[in-house]
Amino acid sequence: MARFRDPPHPLFRRLNASIPFDLRLGPYDVQQSIAHAQALRSAGILDDVELSRIEEGLKTVAGELDGGSFPVHEEDEDVHMAIERRLIELAGPVGGKLHTGRSRNDQVATDVALYVRDHAALGIELTHAVAARLIELAERHSDWAMPGYTHLQRAQPVYLGHHLLAYFWMLHRDALRFEAVRGMSREMPLGSGALAGMNWALDREAVARELGFDRAAANSLDAVSSRDGVFDYLAAAAICATHLSRLAAEIVLWSSEEFGFCEVAEEFSSGSSIMPQKKNPDAAELLRAKAPRIVAALTTVAGALHCLPLAYSKDLQEDKEALFDATDTLELCLEAADPLLAGLRFDRRRLATAAGDELLFATDIADLLVRKGMPFREAHGVVGGLVRAALERGKRLSELDRGELAEHSELLDDEYYDLLRPERSLESKVSAGGTSSERLAEQLEAARSALARLEAQTGR
Amino acid sequence: MARFRDPPHPLFRRLNASIPFDLRLGPYDVQQSIAHAQALRSAGILDDVELSRIEEGLKTVAGELDGGSFPVHEEDEDVHMAIERRLIELAGPVGGKLHTGRSRNDQVATDVALYVRDHAALGIELTHAVAARLIELAERHSDWAMPGYTHLQRAQPVYLGHHLLAYFWMLHRDALRFEAVRGMSREMPLGSGALAGMNWALDREAVARELGFDRAAANSLDAVSSRDGVFDYLAAAAICATHLSRLAAEIVLWSSEEFGFCEVAEEFSSGSSIMPQKKNPDAAELLRAKAPRIVAALTTVAGALHCLPLAYSKDLQEDKEALFDATDTLELCLEAADPLLAGLRFDRRRLATAAGDELLFATDIADLLVRKGMPFREAHGVVGGLVRAALERGKRLSELDRGELAEHSELLDDEYYDLLRPERSLESKVSAGGTSSERLAEQLEAARSALARLEAQTGR
Amino acid sequence: MARFRDPPHPLFRRLNASIPFDLRLGPYDVQQSIAHAQALRSAGILDDVELSRIEEGLKTVAGELDGGSFPVHEEDEDVHMAIERRLIELAGPVGGKLHTGRSRNDQVATDVALYVRDHAALGIELTHAVAARLIELAERHSDWAMPGYTHLQRAQPVYLGHHLLAYFWMLHRDALRFEAVRGMSREMPLGSGALAGMNWALDREAVARELGFDRAAANSLDAVSSRDGVFDYLAAAAICATHLSRLAAEIVLWSSEEFGFCEVAEEFSSGSSIMPQKKNPDAAELLRAKAPRIVAALTTVAGALHCLPLAYSKDLQEDKEALFDATDTLELCLEAADPLLAGLRFDRRRLATAAGDELLFATDIADLLVRKGMPFREAHGVVGGLVRAALERGKRLSELDRGELAEHSELLDDEYYDLLRPERSLESKVSAGGTSSERLAEQLEAARSALARLEAQTGR
Amino acid sequence: MARFRDPPHPLFRRLNASIPFDLRLGPYDVQQSIAHAQALRSAGILDDVELSRIEEGLKTVAGELDGGSFPVHEEDEDVHMAIERRLIELAGPVGGKLHTGRSRNDQVATDVALYVRDHAALGIELTHAVAARLIELAERHSDWAMPGYTHLQRAQPVYLGHHLLAYFWMLHRDALRFEAVRGMSREMPLGSGALAGMNWALDREAVARELGFDRAAANSLDAVSSRDGVFDYLAAAAICATHLSRLAAEIVLWSSEEFGFCEVAEEFSSGSSIMPQKKNPDAAELLRAKAPRIVAALTTVAGALHCLPLAYSKDLQEDKEALFDATDTLELCLEAADPLLAGLRFDRRRLATAAGDELLFATDIADLLVRKGMPFREAHGVVGGLVRAALERGKRLSELDRGELAEHSELLDDEYYDLLRPERSLESKVSAGGTSSERLAEQLEAARSALARLEAQTGR
Repeated sequence: MARFRDPPHPLFRRLNASIPFDLRLGPYDVQQSIAHAQALRSAGILDDVELSRIEEGLKTVAGELDGGSFPVHEEDEDVHMAIERRLIELAGPVGGKLHTGRSRNDQVATDVALYVRDHAALGIELTHAVAARLIELAERHSDWAMPGYTHLQRAQPVYLGHHLLAYFWMLHRDALRFEAVRGMSREMPLGSGALAGMNWALDREAVARELGFDRAAANSLDAVSSRDGVFDYLAAAAICATHLSRLAAEIVLWSSEEFGFCEVAEEFSSGSSIMPQKKNPDAAELLRAKAPRIVAALTTVAGALHCLPLAYSKDLQEDKEALFDATDTLELCLEAADPLLAGLRFDRRRLATAAGDELLFATDIADLLVRKGMPFREAHGVVGGLVRAALERGKRLSELDRGELAEHSELLDDEYYDLLRPERSLESKVSAGGTSSERLAEQLEAARSALARLEAQTGR
Repeated sequence: MARFRDPPHPLFRRLNASIPFDLRLGPYDVQQSIAHAQALRSAGILDDVELSRIEEGLKTVAGELDGGSFPVHEEDEDVHMAIERRLIELAGPVGGKLHTGRSRNDQVATDVALYVRDHAALGIELTHAVAARLIELAERHSDWAMPGYTHLQRAQPVYLGHHLLAYFWMLHRDALRFEAVRGMSREMPLGSGALAGMNWALDREAVARELGFDRAAANSLDAVSSRDGVFDYLAAAAICATHLSRLAAEIVLWSSEEFGFCEVAEEFSSGSSIMPQKKNPDAAELLRAKAPRIVAALTTVAGALHCLPLAYSKDLQEDKEALFDATDTLELCLEAADPLLAGLRFDRRRLATAAGDELLFATDIADLLVRKGMPFREAHGVVGGLVRAALERGKRLSELDRGELAEHSELLDDEYYDLLRPERSLESKVSAGGTSSERLAEQLEAARSALARLEAQTGR
Repeated sequence: MARFRDPPHPLFRRLNASIPFDLRLGPYDVQQSIAHAQALRSAGILDDVELSRIEEGLKTVAGELDGGSFPVHEEDEDVHMAIERRLIELAGPVGGKLHTGRSRNDQVATDVALYVRDHAALGIELTHAVAARLIELAERHSDWAMPGYTHLQRAQPVYLGHHLLAYFWMLHRDALRFEAVRGMSREMPLGSGALAGMNWALDREAVARELGFDRAAANSLDAVSSRDGVFDYLAAAAICATHLSRLAAEIVLWSSEEFGFCEVAEEFSSGSSIMPQKKNPDAAELLRAKAPRIVAALTTVAGALHCLPLAYSKDLQEDKEALFDATDTLELCLEAADPLLAGLRFDRRRLATAAGDELLFATDIADLLVRKGMPFREAHGVVGGLVRAALERGKRLSELDRGELAEHSELLDDEYYDLLRPERSLESKVSAGGTSSERLAEQLEAARSALARLEAQTGR
Repeated sequence: MARFRDPPHPLFRRLNASIPFDLRLGPYDVQQSIAHAQALRSAGILDDVELSRIEEGLKTVAGELDGGSFPVHEEDEDVHMAIERRLIELAGPVGGKLHTGRSRNDQVATDVALYVRDHAALGIELTHAVAARLIELAERHSDWAMPGYTHLQRAQPVYLGHHLLAYFWMLHRDALRFEAVRGMSREMPLGSGALAGMNWALDREAVARELGFDRAAANSLDAVSSRDGVFDYLAAAAICATHLSRLAAEIVLWSSEEFGFCEVAEEFSSGSSIMPQKKNPDAAELLRAKAPRIVAALTTVAGALHCLPLAYSKDLQEDKEALFDATDTLELCLEAADPLLAGLRFDRRRLATAAGDELLFATDIADLLVRKGMPFREAHGVVGGLVRAALERGKRLSELDRGELAEHSELLDDEYYDLLRPERSLESKVSAGGTSSERLAEQLEAARSALARLEAQTGR
């Protein structure tokens, strides 16, 4: 530009150029440029011939971007200037009319909004797929007993299907969150100009409709300064990644020889370079490991926004690599989670053996005492003493005889022995949301309905 | 408990005890305990006399908590055990019946859900108040010209009212986000037991209604393991705090002698211990400084959840101090922001002088050339050259004569000189969302409507 | 102050006041104030009588702080002003001379430097204690075989002592890091004034010596603006907390019924409010859970410093709560780690049984083939095939007969069977730093020496 | 491998493959492989011919990596396997002998240690260069008066040279931190095998010397599990980036029209796509904006390590992209900072005008009163009242007459008027580390000495 005499310093070029990463916004940039050109035509700034030459040029650019043949020049600072430069090469000086009534500031905010919207939609689709897979797995394992854990100590038996559905609800909430992100990205920045609006009364609402937004952004300064959409996406992504982290952590744990509850398919495992026997659940470890990275993408963007006066500052450019890395990472994780889950093989016998641990039924004994009139807090103490006695005598609970029971409470009768079976404990969890078969069947039905509602709501 | 022989190690007691911070959940704990007791009555586990003794005891506890006289004992591990212990002191052994059919795991998840719901509501209220204040300020300063900035360089003039409304829209989105958080906290964990459900078919839906939830959580394992509500609140709080950070950063900047655009009221300023002339905008600096802390609360919770198998693990206790610090911090910031903004005094003269910088009108000159048929990109170059020439000759743009203009373009006529006034530039920003008076009036109207809709929607 | 007419707004007072948390800096503030008063005496600004009245007043303040009787007033903004106010109450107007030649800016930076220095020293002491405990445990379990893991899959046997020493080296590096933090906090900010230095040529080097610093800070602007010491401490604390997280995660894992490798002492365990059988390793869970919180303290401080122009801004006040929370948290964790580790009871039998898993010796078989001339990569493939064959035939490796071995390689002879014992595998790890008994004895010796060097170096 | 029948799932391949990013470790991998091969020769595992064929092959690989012609195959999981695969292609089956006595676990830890060491050295070099540039700038502007700020309010005058040296000391500490990082990376993981050590007594100390380490790591489990070196580097990088953020934030601020203290060179500035007059300090904005990203790299690694049992888990692979992004980002920032600083043009007149603001001398007036015997706290109040009176009367301090002064204190005499000059105030800051010319000259000398010591110490 004529304002400048000196060319950029090579180090500044490297620091400043966003084209190595923002080129992927190219298709969005072309899409909005076509809509913008049409608005320029409607306002009489372009005539029909000019519009069609610009549209033709932009379509060529789109093809080049798609085919990987788009020529990037060393002096291209960003995708917006590169496309304009290429358009002028293709269409001649008329290409220079396209930037009438817009700025890179509203342009990039619009590209980012389109990107967020698309990836929020993809987030819905991919979490939905994993959620559907979890329902399927839960159905297949709805009557497989296993120990439920708290503090990684065996607590009470649950059905594996019940455990798997816990993750269904997490993923389902994630889908709802991505839907909310989509809802928060309904305002179009384009037409805000550099920061103050434009000298041209283009029909922003028409452009917004054309690009699939609900409306034009209400305040030009806010529109070019805000990265709320990125923030919203990253918050939803961070929660979702944390859910995957917990699911994957359990798969790693359950795949250990000590737990032996499941085995990851070979096609999702790796060997060792040195230990020939190894079959490692690498896929699960990686799903687990990605959460901090996605949280870090959020903190990067929050950090870049901190203290930043309005309107656009170059710091806002830091949104993109963080966002792109997060979408790439999360989407790959979700895509891989589906076949990873599908390929898991659970070991019914080992699960059942662990679920047969009689200490898991201690609460049921306490509740027996409650049914006989003892306050729960007191019953808890009685059974605690019983457990201690059994451990000290090296006996299982069922090996204590009536006399030993009577040392702890006269209320313990033969029903005591009947409680020491996983089926009995499982089926006694009759409260809504509990693990008993009937409740689990209801829950499966609720999960299927929730998924169907989600499909209807999000138009999938 | 009889399960244990050894008392807790003093260091373990210090590490483990949550009562120093979770005591503030006491009122929620009492509230849910009353609802739970009523459900126990409905199920026949308590009789009327027992229920009324428990209710009476809990009401006494509520009063003690409220009045600061609740007695905390050294061995009280957490608020739940402390309240049960106190209840038994007050009501006798019948108090020990209250814990029938529930666990601390679902109890604490319910307390936290109630806390999140209340503070999401408070978030709506407080952001609403700041947003309303911003509308009022924007109205009062709707025709005050000032320079808009990009890259902290003067860019184009805007009205101060327009600039202030940019923050209105941020705060308005924050209110919507808190509303979404409230929407995500509609499921009641209580009744999930330790992890697997309960041996008692209490009417969870009735309890949920009583406590203001929409429904009982669908999966007991998920219900006691999830901290999604905390995560959701913290994400909304982090964005909101980042908005305040940007607003406050501008107040600090504008309060500098160099900008001189505004002055913070004395009652929100501090002096220096050594420099008698100082009047520092401490309140604004503090509003600015809090954002990283709230983001850190989010990362603390995300970190604690990372890798965590189901169901409850003690790591989940790390949610509370982070959440409490975030609510306290954000709410105080929002409360203080309102009178801070109300007390700002803007300097119309200094704003106007800065807005009169003729370089701010360079885009308008380029658009003049566009109106005369020159492609924008070319016009941009022409005006860039003109700017450079003016700077090199030490002249203002209005000091260039027709001959000098003609060196750059024959199309520059007398209208050129007419463009070099802030009013002209401001009023030419006619696009929707732009800063011209008419558009700003529309925007003010839209802001008032949005606020009214929010009030209606959130029942304020 | 006379500069101000309006008193602080109540909300500003709440937002601004640091005394609720910085009161704990009081003893440091008194200490530096005495040194400063002596420097004022040396420069002739105070006479002997004035100095002794100020010293006497400050000693009274120190006593009040120590005894918890220091009176905090509502209008006390921070600990510095509170102590000065109290000094004037005690010593009369002469107390107002103390602030000659200093500012709160250099004063608070000095308090913080003293605090960091003390807590770095405490960090050394506490990590040293845990490290010493780990040596002791390692010695006691130096010949207990257990499986080593990669990817949470059994990999090769190691001695438990070897495994425990891995944590020794982590803690030892932590101690070295805290020593480095102490080294980075050797410059005294005091005497930098508000930002530009003082109008009085006090002997800063004498004050520095008095307060135990190496020298006075070289640049007054840097001295009041920097929080590098806090950053350094928090970085060291974050790594240390992450080491504890890994150690504690293993204790939680090993305490599970499935692993059964160790048991946490009752005095570091908790029961369940509902499940009478539970004995949960809460202490280990909490040690594990604290790392993200300490990392968050670091990001809080980094965030507050981001974009902050020189010199002091109020944002710097955000360093203190983050720092205090981190020191409190880490120090309690380290203190608790020592008795927690001391009270662990390992189960030799379960460890040995797991270490007897023959698949752990696959690498040794591959190395047998290497010793017979086969390239390792090829040997790895041969043994991989062997493992697969054994798994498919449902046999242990020792159950394959010579004929079956020959299907995979003619080189597999009777030595093969001899390799399938943990002792053989353990003792074959003869490389430096390996787990064989001789190497482990050397490592124990090296660990003891490292600890002794640390003691000598840090003057403990 | 024969252990596996099924090939990796395409999605697993994408999730698992590290070669897209770890290929840059190739040169380190070759370097350590050559040293390892020599150790295998010394131990008699390779003969001379085998060694020379392996060395030759590895040198070819090194050339291919260097020239960008190294062929990556789809099934190459990581750089280690790719190089081994290529070596076998080049050297035949003997290449398969190279992996004797090592594992990818110790191999990758060694690559990372070498990478950290090199980039710590580069960190020293680059911070040194910026520090040297700051000394040069400080010398050139050692007697340029400017206002020093606290709370972004003018506080007291300083010399620009003094202000610039504040950053010198920050960068100097950064260099010392990178030196400490180098010191913490002196132990070689190689030879630790998968986790337990090796079946071969290779001479690890000789390999360590060959690779420039001080010694072999003492514990094989720790060596393959630790990422402390990465953590240390990232902590140092995060502090350094935060220093650059503050420096750059000041450049952005000072480049505003309102401050007008400096101008960024054209070759480090960008224009606007729409506003022809714009010259934006993009380079400074980008330097500023990178700090949160580097802090996020630290939190990513800390997060991946959280809860991770020993020894190697795949989660550790998350260290590399975070580390590489941080080194690339920080090094480019430091490289660009040098010419950016060199090209800054300060405006002596505007700086001096701002430094002439008489309110900046209020502390000097208070100290005048102190010299006349008034306690400082009282003097502060007197001058505060004087300032208020001047502001209310719309007068400069020098415009108050003797009568008006006397209203505030009888001690204010003609010296009062003499104090109201920047030179007088500047030269009165005589304390060590203060801004007076003599002290600044000493400081410049100290800075030059510190730099020379650093050069000597780090062997530059």
